[in-house]
Amino acid sequence: MSDSLIAEILEPLQSMRLIDPHTHINPLQPASSTLADILGYHYYTELAHSSGLPRPRIEEPGLSPKEKVGRLVPWLAKIENTAQYGWLLEMCQVFFDFREERITEANWESLYDQSLKKMQTPEWEQTVLETSGLDQVYLTNDFDDPLDGFDTRMYVPCLRTDDLVFHLTKPAVRERLQKSSQASPGDAASLKQAISRLFDHFKARGVRACAISLPPDFSPAAVSNSAADVVIAKAFGGKDLTADESGLLNRFVFWSLAEFCAEHKLPFDLMIGVNRRVYEGGVFQGQDLFDNRVSLIQYKALFNAFPTVTFPVSVLSETSNQELVSYSWIFPNVVTCGHWWYSNIPVYIERDTRGRLQAVPQTKQIGYYSDMYKLEFALPKFAMYRRILAKVLAEDFVTGRRWSIERAVTLGKTVLRGNVEKIFGTCD
Amino acid sequence: MSDSLIAEILEPLQSMRLIDPHTHINPLQPASSTLADILGYHYYTELAHSSGLPRPRIEEPGLSPKEKVGRLVPWLAKIENTAQYGWLLEMCQVFFDFREERITEANWESLYDQSLKKMQTPEWEQTVLETSGLDQVYLTNDFDDPLDGFDTRMYVPCLRTDDLVFHLTKPAVRERLQKSSQASPGDAASLKQAISRLFDHFKARGVRACAISLPPDFSPAAVSNSAADVVIAKAFGGKDLTADESGLLNRFVFWSLAEFCAEHKLPFDLMIGVNRRVYEGGVFQGQDLFDNRVSLIQYKALFNAFPTVTFPVSVLSETSNQELVSYSWIFPNVVTCGHWWYSNIPVYIERDTRGRLQAVPQTKQIGYYSDMYKLEFALPKFAMYRRILAKVLAEDFVTGRRWSIERAVTLGKTVLRGNVEKIFGTCD
Amino acid sequence: MSDSLIAEILEPLQSMRLIDPHTHINPLQPASSTLADILGYHYYTELAHSSGLPRPRIEEPGLSPKEKVGRLVPWLAKIENTAQYGWLLEMCQVFFDFREERITEANWESLYDQSLKKMQTPEWEQTVLETSGLDQVYLTNDFDDPLDGFDTRMYVPCLRTDDLVFHLTKPAVRERLQKSSQASPGDAASLKQAISRLFDHFKARGVRACAISLPPDFSPAAVSNSAADVVIAKAFGGKDLTADESGLLNRFVFWSLAEFCAEHKLPFDLMIGVNRRVYEGGVFQGQDLFDNRVSLIQYKALFNAFPTVTFPVSVLSETSNQELVSYSWIFPNVVTCGHWWYSNIPVYIERDTRGRLQAVPQTKQIGYYSDMYKLEFALPKFAMYRRILAKVLAEDFVTGRRWSIERAVTLGKTVLRGNVEKIFGTCD
Repeated sequence: MSDSLIAEILEPLQSMRLIDPHTHINPLQPASSTLADILGYHYYTELAHSSGLPRPRIEEPGLSPKEKVGRLVPWLAKIENTAQYGWLLEMCQVFFDFREERITEANWESLYDQSLKKMQTPEWEQTVLETSGLDQVYLTNDFDDPLDGFDTRMYVPCLRTDDLVFHLTKPAVRERLQKSSQASPGDAASLKQAISRLFDHFKARGVRACAISLPPDFSPAAVSNSAADVVIAKAFGGKDLTADESGLLNRFVFWSLAEFCAEHKLPFDLMIGVNRRVYEGGVFQGQDLFDNRVSLIQYKALFNAFPTVTFPVSVLSETSNQELVSYSWIFPNVVTCGHWWYSNIPVYIERDTRGRLQAVPQTKQIGYYSDMYKLEFALPKFAMYRRILAKVLAEDFVTGRRWSIERAVTLGKTVLRGNVEKIFGTCD
Repeated sequence: MSDSLIAEILEPLQSMRLIDPHTHINPLQPASSTLADILGYHYYTELAHSSGLPRPRIEEPGLSPKEKVGRLVPWLAKIENTAQYGWLLEMCQVFFDFREERITEANWESLYDQSLKKMQTPEWEQTVLETSGLDQVYLTNDFDDPLDGFDTRMYVPCLRTDDLVFHLTKPAVRERLQKSSQASPGDAASLKQAISRLFDHFKARGVRACAISLPPDFSPAAVSNSAADVVIAKAFGGKDLTADESGLLNRFVFWSLAEFCAEHKLPFDLMIGVNRRVYEGGVFQGQDLFDNRVSLIQYKALFNAFPTVTFPVSVLSETSNQELVSYSWIFPNVVTCGHWWYSNIPVYIERDTRGRLQAVPQTKQIGYYSDMYKLEFALPKFAMYRRILAKVLAEDFVTGRRWSIERAVTLGKTVLRGNVEKIFGTCD
Repeated sequence: MSDSLIAEILEPLQSMRLIDPHTHINPLQPASSTLADILGYHYYTELAHSSGLPRPRIEEPGLSPKEKVGRLVPWLAKIENTAQYGWLLEMCQVFFDFREERITEANWESLYDQSLKKMQTPEWEQTVLETSGLDQVYLTNDFDDPLDGFDTRMYVPCLRTDDLVFHLTKPAVRERLQKSSQASPGDAASLKQAISRLFDHFKARGVRACAISLPPDFSPAAVSNSAADVVIAKAFGGKDLTADESGLLNRFVFWSLAEFCAEHKLPFDLMIGVNRRVYEGGVFQGQDLFDNRVSLIQYKALFNAFPTVTFPVSVLSETSNQELVSYSWIFPNVVTCGHWWYSNIPVYIERDTRGRLQAVPQTKQIGYYSDMYKLEFALPKFAMYRRILAKVLAEDFVTGRRWSIERAVTLGKTVLRGNVEKIFGTCD
């Protein structure tokens, strides 16, 4: 394996423009305002906290951005081995002309000031988009998002449905649903109708996917309206549900969402395997973990019942990847999707990529998404992925199967971008 | 790691003759008659279907072989990245002098015609056997197979027992049992006697192993005759069994098979982890998947109870491989066996091979079997395995442990063939 | 990747002195007396037995050391592919000037005699410690170990608590507890007091950690004194416990241990995932296996309840490593620890190391421990680990992230030794 072969494959992949099919960008403030937006990303706060930084030090109310960065910087020395630190360094180098090997207590202030100057320019968002080669950025919108005030062809709406499926027992969520749907659900039919209005609203604003993250023990199943009626009445009457009733409500709403996806021809992104609030003392967004004891067999009924709905599936545990490969190889409506969260580090990305390229039809693989909260992160994350993709293409296809470089690059482009357009639809 | 080192190790492995210890070959028609026999292999039909080809298009009654191939070919473009497509190309190149990079709508007809000419020659079977270097091919025979009309030293009988263990509640299976055993079982003793006759019949025809595929939730245990009597009477009386009763019957028959293996000194191939009919709308043989939540601890009672029976174990999920390595390292009667189905792609084979060669006695590893339905598949599948084996031997033994090339090759030959002969017995 | 780069990183790692933070050394007889102490290590007896050596042949009462070795040697040919055999050869080469490629029936006697001469010299222990570069060796002491007669700064006490948590229902264990604690527990308070005295005794002798190995189905939880009272009274009254009562007792004692660790500021080594006595006919210490269906989510309550206790976690199944990486990345009190038992072979060590170095703060990783019973094993085991560590540092950091060699070496030293000192405390 020569490094120059990898470089030759990487070059055209690095220079191609991208669509990022899953992010948490706020389209009204997509780029960072200060370095605190970047270092405040939960990957850094949780690693710093895990290394010893007390949570109140960075979650103190009224903390200024600069002070927050100043409190995080001393902990960076402990995490400079991590891939996440690698992204940070690459962002600082590419976007802020940072030229040192490390961000330290000695040099962070000049980096802060330097970066602030750049981020305060009015064209900063465009600069980041251009430098990163981003043509489109998919969002993850709350179900009651007005979807106003931004260009939905650039920032593409996706309907996030976690709250609908798992939190209807919370008064605030029910209120938001009532307000956004202009309805007061009290049984299965009226709840479906309320959800239907959300889909109509999103559809009118160019929604490209419905999305949800799911705990390891969730197993979708059809629930009859009559079985759901009682539980929905109870929930919307503000009464507590038993665990069984909660489960029934979750499954009823989830199944209804799949029905609306079928009706509206929307892909349904499933992000499978997260346990919420495992570490209760953790920093903001740094409390969730997983349980590797999960199987796609739990989704058997769903995949069979909705042959017309495409399910881009992300798995949190690397031990789920072979199942994902195999289910995508068998089910026409299951496609592999990105490298999620705890699996988004090189060792797991490389192996997952290898398995998918070796056994899943090339048209059924969404190579990568950034999952970012701020625009600057697309660049280092996609760069990491593209380097790994180039390595796998070089080793398994050019060397291993004697493909031409051109052909390997075409395969790379298909999983990097082509499939995103085919599966979610292109800009019009 | 130099490529020439790998090549030097590969050469003697590629040129050695083989025994294929697990296939689904029909000995009365072992080789393909047309390209449809090759492209009709479920690996291609399911990948094409998964890519979008509607199942009725290829399962239409009365479809001619050529038309079937013609309908599959346009979908090959979507799966040309897969290892399975790699096998197809290698078969066409080696057996049919195909010289192009891809099988396309433009070139498939000439390939079809060219291959047909070859396959229609009377010596085709011998040609394939010779080209592939196959000395023996193990079969997977239904329990009521007459085992007539073929050379059982070339095509070695193995008794497949899935139907006996899991499908005795089906009238057709009971009828087949009654007919083939010349008995009408109604209780534990008579059922055992009927099964005993099947073993006698297979034994007389040179059977080398008993084999079964098992679902992830199966856990063998001894069942007393008296506990089994009631359930067997009920089942053979044509009555429906409860889930508990079914489980008891399954375990009773399975345990009895192990007893007969002990009596007849037969290895018992366990293929652990398949869920049948997960994708109900899938193509023929393209409906099964798995659940990675399975453990060999479920086989603790079995491995302890039958110390004289050798269990060549195949696992479906790559997450089971380390358990297989460890159980084979501890239990004298457990041996590792091949790379099964969804684990039969390079990324998993390489890692599994590495773990096994590093921690399991070299005498307790059956390197590979093809699992093929038609003879042509042994060649590309074994070629894939041999390339990986050579790479692991080069990296881990010659480079990593400074073994001589000759010594590494000897190890390779042991797992490729030597152990097959030692564990299943040699030709007489 | 050039081999010379790996060698350049390896050299300073190989030459640095070590602390071995987890062993089963008997400090009164730390080094081997004969080759039988080395070949009698369960890794060899179990592999030989698995290859066909009947257990009574090597467990025969009164067997002389030389005869035992003589009976094991013929089976070595079957396991010479294993990593474990690699350690054996390296020990013989380094310590006993063995110059051949294999230990055979033809050469073992001269090796035996040659090694015996060396081991009988009075300075043998010191020779091994010096040759291996060992500064300190951590022990695993029974709770009633007097901890007398050895230098506890060289051989550091650790309190092993398996018996307390899982075997208090055995009369012999209760007697040992009563004797060592000078107390007769009969309820929760008095049992805690008895355990408290063990901690006091160990603390006075410089204990550095509390340690326990845990079965895959164990899940710690707080148990109230009042709930425990009944069960403790029953157990110490010599009555049989139900499975539920046993579980409650286990959890009560375990939770109490964590409380004492908090009080005494002791790390609590958790070794998660072993099933005891799976292969009942296995050789001494060669009967245990595992079940990959285990998750760190089972430890959620524990990790949350004891933020001041550091938990160095070892996992037995490689499928648990990504969870360990992720829990260590999130929880400040969880650190990764070594490569345990069935995961202690190169294929798993390499991948685990990669994941940890890519995503866990560098200060939270204890790279390796030998788990040895005799001193001679530290050398080949640490050598194996250091070679893999150098490879990962070369590939992922120097090549992959353009770190200087010096910086990569510093990271290597941190996980090899620096963190051991920081987490368990330094010698005074």
